Amino acid sequence: MSEIRKDPLSNDWVIIASERGGRPTDLKTETTKEEKGKFCPFCDSSEVSEPVKPHSICAATFAPDGKWMTRILPNKYPALMPEPILAQREMDDLYHCLTGVGGHEILVDSPKHDETLATMSKEQIEAIITNYQCRYSYWRKDPRITYLSVFKNHGKVAGASLHHPHSQLVATPLIPPRLTTELNESKEYFKLNNECLMCKILKTELENKHRLIFENNSVAAFCSFAPRFPFESLIVPKRHSASLEEITKEEISDLAEAMSVIFKKLDKLLNDPPFNYLIHVAPLRTPGLLYYHWHIEVILRLSQPAGFEWGSGVYINSVPPEDAALELNKVKIR
Amino acid sequence: MSEIRKDPLSNDWVIIASERGGRPTDLKTETTKEEKGKFCPFCDSSEVSEPVKPHSICAATFAPDGKWMTRILPNKYPALMPEPILAQREMDDLYHCLTGVGGHEILVDSPKHDETLATMSKEQIEAIITNYQCRYSYWRKDPRITYLSVFKNHGKVAGASLHHPHSQLVATPLIPPRLTTELNESKEYFKLNNECLMCKILKTELENKHRLIFENNSVAAFCSFAPRFPFESLIVPKRHSASLEEITKEEISDLAEAMSVIFKKLDKLLNDPPFNYLIHVAPLRTPGLLYYHWHIEVILRLSQPAGFEWGSGVYINSVPPEDAALELNKVKIR
Repeated sequence: MSEIRKDPLSNDWVIIASERGGRPTDLKTETTKEEKGKFCPFCDSSEVSEPVKPHSICAATFAPDGKWMTRILPNKYPALMPEPILAQREMDDLYHCLTGVGGHEILVDSPKHDETLATMSKEQIEAIITNYQCRYSYWRKDPRITYLSVFKNHGKVAGASLHHPHSQLVATPLIPPRLTTELNESKEYFKLNNECLMCKILKTELENKHRLIFENNSVAAFCSFAPRFPFESLIVPKRHSASLEEITKEEISDLAEAMSVIFKKLDKLLNDPPFNYLIHVAPLRTPGLLYYHWHIEVILRLSQPAGFEWGSGVYINSVPPEDAALELNKVKIR
Repeated sequence: MSEIRKDPLSNDWVIIASERGGRPTDLKTETTKEEKGKFCPFCDSSEVSEPVKPHSICAATFAPDGKWMTRILPNKYPALMPEPILAQREMDDLYHCLTGVGGHEILVDSPKHDETLATMSKEQIEAIITNYQCRYSYWRKDPRITYLSVFKNHGKVAGASLHHPHSQLVATPLIPPRLTTELNESKEYFKLNNECLMCKILKTELENKHRLIFENNSVAAFCSFAPRFPFESLIVPKRHSASLEEITKEEISDLAEAMSVIFKKLDKLLNDPPFNYLIHVAPLRTPGLLYYHWHIEVILRLSQPAGFEWGSGVYINSVPPEDAALELNKVKIR
């Protein structure tokens, strides 16, 4: 018998139909390997072959030996561009439209072309997180920008057109709808319960352990109660905080450990599966929000949403999150 | 310069970033052709090889010679099943859950294995629409069901696991979130303007013709103002009506003509592209709704939503709908 579940934060409705699939690990994985010999614009050498403009490139984090660990590049095909004009809402009585002002950056996550989160050192993942933190601080200064979406696409199926490990950032003059829903739900829950919704979710998941997949001093991770995708998970800081920007050094170290362990396990269990993650934070203009709790949403791209999902907004998932957590917890690494 | 557009009905926010893509027809199309020699459970012969139970199979529409034109099969891997119990909302203070009662049917759209909407006769498409109409009437009788999603996946990339032309139906005990948004927006617009929102959209599109791609006596079609996907279009009946169930014989004929022309043009322009369509109607328990106007949403699966889209709910589309309409209107068929 299937179950229809509702996510308390995103309001997503999901049909958990385990009869449709086999075992959670039977899911087909398309390879994330690339053809050999392709030119990589993110590799170190390209820095030398192209003229380097000061505004177009910066090495954000360095290793003790002075070499770059992560760096930032403008996106060659940007969805939005930082033109020096204010975003203006053009309205008629029917159709609404904003000028597409904003930003779209590539965050190169390592100098090594073939590294993945599953093979990187913990120090490298710390550098990635520190780089993210810098970008929030940087974009906060632009008064036209209200939200920063920092995300990673891994594997072709997940939308990564280049193999070299990288994340992306889209700065928008609007708060994205999924965030608006999360903010509304969190605000409503706080009003009724005088408690942060994510703090409550975290407490529940740490207590019942049905879906828990990782815990250390300052970070916990669990498969979502109502996952749109198989193995969909949340990585959540234990300390209530509205944005990744407020993360401490110790928390960066703990988060890097969490990410390292989770992506090593996914890699081993599902053979380097394609995935996306997106960092959910409070809007840039509302720092220190009491009712919002930042987190990282991880989705594996092992299933193909089709007409039903795109048209209805309801998702069919053949892997119950409790089974996904069980499988992940069985994996031994190192 | 990009544009950020908001859809008045679905509330979707879309970034139209034409700088990211080339010409609209440059989009990569994965082939929808299948390997030869595979067994097809939807072909006529399988009807003979398997015992036919009266409740599991019915030929819904017949040709004048008595042969079936469309028929209905239960889904072998159903997302929801019509167990004889009432859907019950299980609640705790955090997580909500419904028993997965409902229905999931396969609507076989033709006896011919290799037909597509682009190659079918108009009579065959009329039979498909008549079959849809019958299923609305059938499921309306089940008091546990509040919504019927009728949709079609064409091509592997679009989620079709079998090649034989077919549609699907998912009957749910809940109103899907995308429909809830459409209902809310339509109701709000009606309250303020004493006019149906879709009637207003239709009038605007027929007047300015920027995105119009088809018109006959009772049906019009246009590319959406804020499309999540390249070439996303709406097929809309001109007469205000809340559900496809209320369609007349003449309107079925006109709708079949619209679908035939549109899918022939898409086929010719983009080489049999993978697509989904979903029929949006009012919920089953609210017949004759004054403020909701049924329609068919068509999306082409030529682009891959990635981390940004899944996490934020904002879509990046490299093809402005005005350009897509221009390309479609250039295509000559027959």
